[in-house]
Amino acid sequence: MDENQRIVLAAKPHGLPRESDFALVRGPVPQPGPGEVLVRCLWLSVDPYMRGLIDAVYPYVKPILVGDTMFGGAVGRVAVSNDPAFAVGELVEGYLGWQLYAVARASELRRIDPQWGPPSTALGVLGMPGMTAYFGMTEIGEPQAGQTVVVSAAAGAVGSAAGQIAKIRGCRVVGIAGSAEKVRHVVDDLGFDACIDYRTEPDLAGALRRCCPDRIHVYFDNVGGTTYDAVMTWLALDARIVICGQISQYNDREAEVGPRRLKEFEMWRARQQGFRVLDYRPRYGEGIAEMARWLAQGRMRYRETVAQGLENSAGAFIGMLQGRNIGKQLVQLAQDAAMNH
Amino acid sequence: MDENQRIVLAAKPHGLPRESDFALVRGPVPQPGPGEVLVRCLWLSVDPYMRGLIDAVYPYVKPILVGDTMFGGAVGRVAVSNDPAFAVGELVEGYLGWQLYAVARASELRRIDPQWGPPSTALGVLGMPGMTAYFGMTEIGEPQAGQTVVVSAAAGAVGSAAGQIAKIRGCRVVGIAGSAEKVRHVVDDLGFDACIDYRTEPDLAGALRRCCPDRIHVYFDNVGGTTYDAVMTWLALDARIVICGQISQYNDREAEVGPRRLKEFEMWRARQQGFRVLDYRPRYGEGIAEMARWLAQGRMRYRETVAQGLENSAGAFIGMLQGRNIGKQLVQLAQDAAMNH
Repeated sequence: MDENQRIVLAAKPHGLPRESDFALVRGPVPQPGPGEVLVRCLWLSVDPYMRGLIDAVYPYVKPILVGDTMFGGAVGRVAVSNDPAFAVGELVEGYLGWQLYAVARASELRRIDPQWGPPSTALGVLGMPGMTAYFGMTEIGEPQAGQTVVVSAAAGAVGSAAGQIAKIRGCRVVGIAGSAEKVRHVVDDLGFDACIDYRTEPDLAGALRRCCPDRIHVYFDNVGGTTYDAVMTWLALDARIVICGQISQYNDREAEVGPRRLKEFEMWRARQQGFRVLDYRPRYGEGIAEMARWLAQGRMRYRETVAQGLENSAGAFIGMLQGRNIGKQLVQLAQDAAMNH
Repeated sequence: MDENQRIVLAAKPHGLPRESDFALVRGPVPQPGPGEVLVRCLWLSVDPYMRGLIDAVYPYVKPILVGDTMFGGAVGRVAVSNDPAFAVGELVEGYLGWQLYAVARASELRRIDPQWGPPSTALGVLGMPGMTAYFGMTEIGEPQAGQTVVVSAAAGAVGSAAGQIAKIRGCRVVGIAGSAEKVRHVVDDLGFDACIDYRTEPDLAGALRRCCPDRIHVYFDNVGGTTYDAVMTWLALDARIVICGQISQYNDREAEVGPRRLKEFEMWRARQQGFRVLDYRPRYGEGIAEMARWLAQGRMRYRETVAQGLENSAGAFIGMLQGRNIGKQLVQLAQDAAMNH
């Protein structure tokens, strides 16, 4: 068995991370103890929340410190198993970190059913981002047929799924995205009713008025910032605002300043709620089964942007924070020799 | 029967209203039609929401236009009844406006039980402000025993009741108020665990950290503005923010600027909700019965600030917007000659 390689945080970034904030470290392949499994990683996920972990913003989650292996979800195959729950060669998903080989407790791994879709979907539409969209939209957003739903970062892994779920629920769905290509993808491939390019639209609030004649019943917010401000000017009665992500703000240490949209809560009897997808982990089976059914029916579509090789994971992460990806940003570590296993 | 007098909006105020924005108009006492009742008003309520009605901020409520009689709740006695539901001399409460005599449909009036408390309480602790505190705290705030609850405008009609309800529920309750006298009242008379004077406290966020060692589980917000900003820096997990009022902002046409506190929703899984007390009007009976029981038990206390005479209602309203009152601000129109009726 060859050496392990992993990406560690080399320096704490200020603002947008740079490649030099990360370093590739080589070492021996770790050995699993009793009840543990060695996984050869095939796919890594890079996600916005990792930027928050570096800044230690989540009070209930261990932060990523300088010298730590970068934290993150990955898909791989079991290489060595010291637990009867997993056999060598099985496909698994877990928080394995940015590395070629990882040891994990069997209880921390989730078996992937290849019938549901390609293994990489366990990090996207059938994984954490898909579950974020599923539980955030259905449990917090609670869209009703005929209502209007607005989704920001609509071409991203979470936004693309969130909007399609609202479409399946019978809503008018309007996306907000950051390029002409993304806007085309959101409308033509994903079937949103409309999509606004916030980078070229000089009057986002006005564009929302045009695209949402019945006002906005659900706002699924992945970005925060001035996009949030614009949406808050056009709420419908009993509006629900799902605070899923704040990608426009993650590189800032201080809260950005904007109008305090509080009167709107009183006026429109609005509800705003943040959530943690990990709280729904016991219900992932239910969410994945529903999403897999929609995938099979062709009612749920997804796209992936794939970087090749562990050495490009920092670049993929930085590009994702800048919105360069469409759909789920992944890093492919190895061709899956055991695909037919 | 003598003449009627009423206060009309004479000019649309910009910022804090002035006395000259209101005018007293004399005219004949109105005559009730079939199904209607003539009420001789004894007590008027002045409330923060009236400032919003003048600016037409509530999309679902008829605004107060120049020339209109000022809208508001009042308590009076039935002088003439053309409806079998009410007898002459009965005490009633309704949205009768700022005037000595008002005609109302019987269905719009609520009978007051004098056993519950003095008639004026039907405009305070046993009326709209009390119901705002009751349903806002119990249904939206959902305080649990042992949790910490912060209430702004704690010496006001709503805040004083909201905090006492949380105390009854077994919470640690910290008020925020705007004078040494209010702070004393909130702690000594109402039994809050602590109260912060925001006008003299140079570091409100720091004071909240000192007063709330377990962080803040429920924030009952009557004021908005920088007080909200400070509270949002010290939320507990699963915090609930009840957007009840925004009195610091009502005189502003544009939303004041402050830090966008959105990351906090994600970090703390927080929920923020606005509500309209009128939605709970079908349940007022339940709320009033509970509040009246607490009053009788001495567990709920209230204070009133009373202006005398219709001609002083504009002044009372302006003073209330500036926070000059402690407890419920009322205007007494007449001594109740029929008190023993």
